[in-house]
Amino acid sequence: MMNSEPTAALARFVASSDARQLPERLRHEAKRALLNWLGCAIGASRHDTAERMIAALAPFAGAAQATLLGRTERFDILNAAMVNGTASHTFDFDDTHLKTIIHPTGPVASAVLALAEHAPVAGDEFIHAFVLGTEVECRIGNAVYPSHYDVGWHITGTAGVFGAAAAAGRLLGLEAQQLAWALGIAATQSSGLREMFGSMCKPLHVGVAARNGLAAALLAHQGFTSAPQPIEGRRGFAHVLATRRDFSRITEGLGETWELDANSYKPFACGVVIHPAIDGCIQLRNEHRLAPAAIAAIELDVHPLVLELTGKKAPRSGLEGKFSVYHSCAVAIFDGVAAEAQYSDARVVDPAVVALRDRVTARIDPALREDAAVVRIRLNDGSVLERRVEHALGSRERPMSDADLEVKFRSLCTPLLGGVAVDALIAACWSLDKSADAGKIAHMTVPGRD
Amino acid sequence: MMNSEPTAALARFVASSDARQLPERLRHEAKRALLNWLGCAIGASRHDTAERMIAALAPFAGAAQATLLGRTERFDILNAAMVNGTASHTFDFDDTHLKTIIHPTGPVASAVLALAEHAPVAGDEFIHAFVLGTEVECRIGNAVYPSHYDVGWHITGTAGVFGAAAAAGRLLGLEAQQLAWALGIAATQSSGLREMFGSMCKPLHVGVAARNGLAAALLAHQGFTSAPQPIEGRRGFAHVLATRRDFSRITEGLGETWELDANSYKPFACGVVIHPAIDGCIQLRNEHRLAPAAIAAIELDVHPLVLELTGKKAPRSGLEGKFSVYHSCAVAIFDGVAAEAQYSDARVVDPAVVALRDRVTARIDPALREDAAVVRIRLNDGSVLERRVEHALGSRERPMSDADLEVKFRSLCTPLLGGVAVDALIAACWSLDKSADAGKIAHMTVPGRD
Repeated sequence: MMNSEPTAALARFVASSDARQLPERLRHEAKRALLNWLGCAIGASRHDTAERMIAALAPFAGAAQATLLGRTERFDILNAAMVNGTASHTFDFDDTHLKTIIHPTGPVASAVLALAEHAPVAGDEFIHAFVLGTEVECRIGNAVYPSHYDVGWHITGTAGVFGAAAAAGRLLGLEAQQLAWALGIAATQSSGLREMFGSMCKPLHVGVAARNGLAAALLAHQGFTSAPQPIEGRRGFAHVLATRRDFSRITEGLGETWELDANSYKPFACGVVIHPAIDGCIQLRNEHRLAPAAIAAIELDVHPLVLELTGKKAPRSGLEGKFSVYHSCAVAIFDGVAAEAQYSDARVVDPAVVALRDRVTARIDPALREDAAVVRIRLNDGSVLERRVEHALGSRERPMSDADLEVKFRSLCTPLLGGVAVDALIAACWSLDKSADAGKIAHMTVPGRD
Repeated sequence: MMNSEPTAALARFVASSDARQLPERLRHEAKRALLNWLGCAIGASRHDTAERMIAALAPFAGAAQATLLGRTERFDILNAAMVNGTASHTFDFDDTHLKTIIHPTGPVASAVLALAEHAPVAGDEFIHAFVLGTEVECRIGNAVYPSHYDVGWHITGTAGVFGAAAAAGRLLGLEAQQLAWALGIAATQSSGLREMFGSMCKPLHVGVAARNGLAAALLAHQGFTSAPQPIEGRRGFAHVLATRRDFSRITEGLGETWELDANSYKPFACGVVIHPAIDGCIQLRNEHRLAPAAIAAIELDVHPLVLELTGKKAPRSGLEGKFSVYHSCAVAIFDGVAAEAQYSDARVVDPAVVALRDRVTARIDPALREDAAVVRIRLNDGSVLERRVEHALGSRERPMSDADLEVKFRSLCTPLLGGVAVDALIAACWSLDKSADAGKIAHMTVPGRD
């Protein structure tokens, strides 16, 4: 029975999938995902999170096999996967699989790009392995979401390790039995607590998932064994880390429907649940040329997750600001954007921003979808402006265009790499499937290389 | 309230504990634990589990900073901790904290010994850090046992990572805030599923806990942050990975009572239910200098579980031999021990052992406790020797003596290192607290070094 054996089904699927059969739209979506991910990793490559991790790991890293994206140092592939994965999620600006709120690209791409630098592979095979990894990761997420997340697991880390193992295993040419072991070695390292949100450990989960998934594939390649049912067994991943599970979400339509079709990109540098409220604030601001001083109050109707995840009333750091719907809406009114600069430590304690933030209130409306919100702005003159956002920018219904993604990429990377290098990187991403050596794109992120 | 803040309490305790105040009995127990752990790691250093892991990791390991115990290769300290931790649990022959069935030494010792090779430390400080690590690990285990284990977590891995972080953090001189971060970085990597029992992933959990705990301390040392309540928070370790928890088990009596007092050691490399019968055989053998050829029959009275779990009359492999009370008693008569070498594939089919095994019979006595047995040996001259074992060696009531631990150590290590090196290692363990450089003991495990 295939439905009762999700691990074996995933292993067979990854081992036997044919790169030439991959639909063209998925090849393009993979390039969009990789462009967006590279920008996030490069943009955060000088953040304290990366600096401290690199300082801690450098004395113990192996040969200079793989690039630390956006930097001049090189580490062995396992440590490089860990650093790049962590950097890529540091701004919380990476992509989102909407059904599970997994950030799918970070764990998978961080593993396979490091591996591709060490063991060269053509772009089309690289993209195929990447798509298979995100498919495995998101299907396992689908099977345990939402109970798994509700228990307290950071699903990007816990599911991401499977995706990294599958994609790296594919590139290593693992057979189905070895892939099943790799998924088991991944399962038993699945970790990452939601308690860590707001600390450097949140992005760490992505780096750890990338490193552990890659290591799982390398171990399985050498015959390191695991249990036969790591996902579905009585003491396996889906029973131990979730209160409900549906294995048909793993096996049904495998190779026919693709989870990367449900991927989305963030226009704003904070948790996706706040995006509809920010979007509504920016729309009203721009349409009415609102000055913060004219505003008496901002009232939000939001999905319940908004207050559960981003309800910080008085954030004290840029990082905490990302978990504050109040700061996010205030700063969006000031600037008309909510990119990384709007979440600096200084901005979060700027008295003018704080004063407006304190005039923002939010109330839960369980009838709202996650990508919807209502924004009401009461002006000092007594008038009220209201905007109902049905689908936030970046949602499935209103996706960011390729041009939007390029703008975002430039804003993240140009300050570090300069315009010429950024143009070359963007072009290399769009033609990655034609590349004879996918790993070369990592080297293009090194600043000042020519 | 200290009880509501176990993370902060543990961090303060580890930061402020005074090595000179450590009771002498704990210093000695630590040396016993370390001797036993070293023997298990050296003994399994050529097992397929270690060979495959080393083959997978070698191309990516860093500078030759730390010994792979019992081998000539050296890895960076993080990879060495992972390999040594995994090796030390491969035979399932390491120590047991009886309240939680945590194997406490593996995660902690694997982390701090690798670190001590790289950053030299005196033996008394090393032992103090080791004791603090096991204390943190076992107290966190106490707080969530048994519900945590019942859910399906391999508690040695999940709790071990905290112990490794605490002990390594102490050796790195972390302040209380950094230690709290280290415990948080550990908490969010806590992992290891019981589903893996019977595969190479079971010992992997110990290696992963050692590596991740050590990395957590190194990251915290560089200022890598975590959440303030990683253990007790609503989405923290104790709520997400257990259905019941009692934080007073972490904080009460901290620095006054010591969990290493509840540690125990396995004398025989097989299921614990056979231990009383083996014990009785060895006692009679040694007291009467029995030769196998002089024995007409061995009759056992045993607890019902013995025949249910270990009733294999004619085992065909070393692994099957561990499930045969008949093989176990026969080989114990020959060798006076029942360590890993007595369960080799060759030994199980050795005609002399088989001939004696076929003269062993066992009968159930439901009145016997699990740690009791009666052994009757009928000699060819018609005489009968009988021994009633009330509590098997290694039980709480009859702990293994220092001399017993030495016998076990010799049986595990002499075939690999030779008697002279083993004598030196044993002496170095017993005087470890007087050593000026604790890490040197790792180098003494390298075969053929002089």
